Amino acid sequence: MILKSLMIKIDRASRIPIKDQIVEEIKNLINQGLIKTDTALPSSRVLAVKLGVSRYTVYQAYEELQVYGHLKSRPGSYNVVQKRKKEAPFDPERKSIISWEKVCNESSERLFAGYLKNLADIPTRSQQKDPTVINLTEMQLDPSLFPVENFSRCLRHILSENGQTAMDFCSPEGNEALRDYIAQRLGLHGISTSQDEILITYGSQQALDLIMRLLCRSDKKVVIESPTYYNIIPLLQFYNSSILGIPMRHDGMDLGQLERVLNEEAVSFVYTIPNFQNPTGLTTSHNHREKLLNICIKHRVPIVEDGFDEEMKYSGILPLPIKSIDEKNIVLYLGTFSKILFPGLRIGWVTADKDCIRRLTALKRTSDLRCGNLTQTALAYFCQQGYYDLHLRRLHRIFRNRLEVALQTMKDHFPKTTSWTRPKGGYSIWVRMPKKMSPIQLHEHMSRYKVGVSPGGYYFLQQSESEYFRLSIARVGAEEIREGIKRLACALRELSLETDLPSSS
Amino acid sequence: MILKSLMIKIDRASRIPIKDQIVEEIKNLINQGLIKTDTALPSSRVLAVKLGVSRYTVYQAYEELQVYGHLKSRPGSYNVVQKRKKEAPFDPERKSIISWEKVCNESSERLFAGYLKNLADIPTRSQQKDPTVINLTEMQLDPSLFPVENFSRCLRHILSENGQTAMDFCSPEGNEALRDYIAQRLGLHGISTSQDEILITYGSQQALDLIMRLLCRSDKKVVIESPTYYNIIPLLQFYNSSILGIPMRHDGMDLGQLERVLNEEAVSFVYTIPNFQNPTGLTTSHNHREKLLNICIKHRVPIVEDGFDEEMKYSGILPLPIKSIDEKNIVLYLGTFSKILFPGLRIGWVTADKDCIRRLTALKRTSDLRCGNLTQTALAYFCQQGYYDLHLRRLHRIFRNRLEVALQTMKDHFPKTTSWTRPKGGYSIWVRMPKKMSPIQLHEHMSRYKVGVSPGGYYFLQQSESEYFRLSIARVGAEEIREGIKRLACALRELSLETDLPSSS
Repeated sequence: MILKSLMIKIDRASRIPIKDQIVEEIKNLINQGLIKTDTALPSSRVLAVKLGVSRYTVYQAYEELQVYGHLKSRPGSYNVVQKRKKEAPFDPERKSIISWEKVCNESSERLFAGYLKNLADIPTRSQQKDPTVINLTEMQLDPSLFPVENFSRCLRHILSENGQTAMDFCSPEGNEALRDYIAQRLGLHGISTSQDEILITYGSQQALDLIMRLLCRSDKKVVIESPTYYNIIPLLQFYNSSILGIPMRHDGMDLGQLERVLNEEAVSFVYTIPNFQNPTGLTTSHNHREKLLNICIKHRVPIVEDGFDEEMKYSGILPLPIKSIDEKNIVLYLGTFSKILFPGLRIGWVTADKDCIRRLTALKRTSDLRCGNLTQTALAYFCQQGYYDLHLRRLHRIFRNRLEVALQTMKDHFPKTTSWTRPKGGYSIWVRMPKKMSPIQLHEHMSRYKVGVSPGGYYFLQQSESEYFRLSIARVGAEEIREGIKRLACALRELSLETDLPSSS
Repeated sequence: MILKSLMIKIDRASRIPIKDQIVEEIKNLINQGLIKTDTALPSSRVLAVKLGVSRYTVYQAYEELQVYGHLKSRPGSYNVVQKRKKEAPFDPERKSIISWEKVCNESSERLFAGYLKNLADIPTRSQQKDPTVINLTEMQLDPSLFPVENFSRCLRHILSENGQTAMDFCSPEGNEALRDYIAQRLGLHGISTSQDEILITYGSQQALDLIMRLLCRSDKKVVIESPTYYNIIPLLQFYNSSILGIPMRHDGMDLGQLERVLNEEAVSFVYTIPNFQNPTGLTTSHNHREKLLNICIKHRVPIVEDGFDEEMKYSGILPLPIKSIDEKNIVLYLGTFSKILFPGLRIGWVTADKDCIRRLTALKRTSDLRCGNLTQTALAYFCQQGYYDLHLRRLHRIFRNRLEVALQTMKDHFPKTTSWTRPKGGYSIWVRMPKKMSPIQLHEHMSRYKVGVSPGGYYFLQQSESEYFRLSIARVGAEEIREGIKRLACALRELSLETDLPSSS
């Protein structure tokens, strides 16, 4: 049977394209059984005339219905409705017959439990988005500082000049021009390297992941600072590593303790953040760096040096990276552009001994083939044009001020029962409160004062209650920082009153 | 001691910015010992006058020298040269004192060995770039088909309209608008899902990696088709999975054998590519899909369905995905934009039961936090604007033609001693030669005829010699495909002559 026409309603005022309207209407007619299987639809010419649309529009609609299995056609013949196989209907409550918690492996199930616990602790997104709460929680750069204009300009340039190459794939090691720039840039920090010793990763988090894939093993332990970067802990636990936390002193991890540990235990690697450590904001001295390096050389244990904040030295003379004095080539040095340019970029890197980089490259290739070339190409051009330098200078000026404002306001307002670090760069300050609190208690207490900070407990191996919190100046401007710290001061004074410490006022 | 001036040569004709020249010159003077430690440099005002440059330029140069530790200064005071800590000099031949092959874990060292072997097999980049060799090797889309213009337009639009949001971070699950679009798009293929059941990944390779992190366990095996997608094999080996390969028949994997395996073995998941399988180009029937699903439901074993080529159905009616009839929610379905839009994008996804997606999200968050938001936002906009549909229609037209040309030329020219598959979409055709060859033998033989194909051995668990190769129509146009296949025909005729088969001509 050949239909002469179809009862189709076209709404020319709608924002939905006419082709899509035709597709939708015909699908509905078929699904409701109003057009039966094996019925031939009108020719595209006939239907176009009836509907008062172009023949091409009908042609496109029929083509789409063919591709998705509603119509079959032979060249030069009518389009015939075909019975489509039954589809599983959408049900938001539908359950799998598989119990994922039973089929998953133990490591991932443990990781998932930690993830859920953390989600329960952390304020929900809607709370974070409450505009009356001042956000001193996040380490992601303030969006008003993103180099939107200049990055757009670079994307435009590379796409118009050589779009096909930028959109094509690059080697697993990453875009060559970008690796070249990073090598050159690292020279400014005293690190001599070349593009062959650099692997581009999706942020420094992926570099950490690949390093663990390479080095973690059941017969060795991993040494971290305590407290340390939150996101390394679940990762190490996933790789079933035994973790040894070495306490942070004023000049970095306790080296006496490190030496004792390395004498007694087999260690895969030592993880350290020498500049403006996350979360403490502490920077180690050159002397500490040299000693740490020598201890690890003596025990032939690789150092993983996280330089995520290397470029955020706002003022004063700060020591060069451990990697800069690493003549024995035992340091794997990580960096990232995501913290300093914009978080939606996800480009980091690791530089290390060539043999180590080749192994990491094999792992990278296996896990996701390579990083996206388009953003890498744009970033390389952005850097080559000097926009990166320009951006960095602007950031230094702004953050030097934010940091001064933060530290001065803390000095002026925080109760005597608290103490805190005085970083020379980076985004974070580490505050000791007059009493211990669980993450959820801290969150609730601070929420009442309309200010958000990050609970100290997160940064220790045993993620429990803590007398610390981390304050970040990354996400909001100087005025908001000042106001946020004043609110914190009130919240802290209330805590002081609750405690029996003689020094509380 | 305060210097009155400095012997600095500025080259105004140079492309190197003057600020950088000043930095470089002063660094050299310090490094050569011509300016001693503790010497104060001229004020920026004085030096600017002497050099005939702006004071700001000198100020910037001094600032850079401070940041990188060559100068120290107090506000309002002179810049004083300071002794910089000794740096490790760059030596391309330098070796680490660490033997990486000994400190790495076994899995990664095994993976690295495979990677090196594969690198040795595969022609080097320079050979691949030989313009006289016709590339029928790669599965990456022909750059001349990249939607450069329209994608640029979308990037421009989102950056100018809402750049800060696009450059900010998104949730670990991925950009919401993109997940919404994917959910809607999957509806066209009969898959009913929602953004809560979708996780964005760096290509479908990362989706595979995350699924293995979740599901691989030492007490279970993984079932794959034999042959199958090359890159899944090293990944499974890395996760120490025992792998069971089920032979491919004309209508997909041998289901009798699958059933026997599932009766006898504990299996983590079954991996299948139902459309235009890589490498064979075979598409399974609806009947096969239904049976496969029922077998796996019976044994409560998840199916990992790789739909990387779902959108590349050029003609005819093809069955809907297994996921579309998955009422028990046991299928994890993967897709990607990278194969169809451009390889430098690296955006794929997985959709599955919500509980499974939440677990995969926890793993994603731990391994690299989240995907880059900028490209996701641009892609979502590109799709919403209808550019994706437009691109796909164009691709279908072009590849329908390429495939016809390829199959016709093979029919006209290939010797009778060969046989091959006749796919209805996708990029790959699977050819059986009159004799077995190792990858390196095949490569050398085909190189003499100036054509490149992918050795069949790669796609089997035991990567050795094989009588198959894969031919891809992804990377070059119809005319080159025709010429490439004629060259292959000559190469194959020579092989036929070498064999003793009675049918060789």
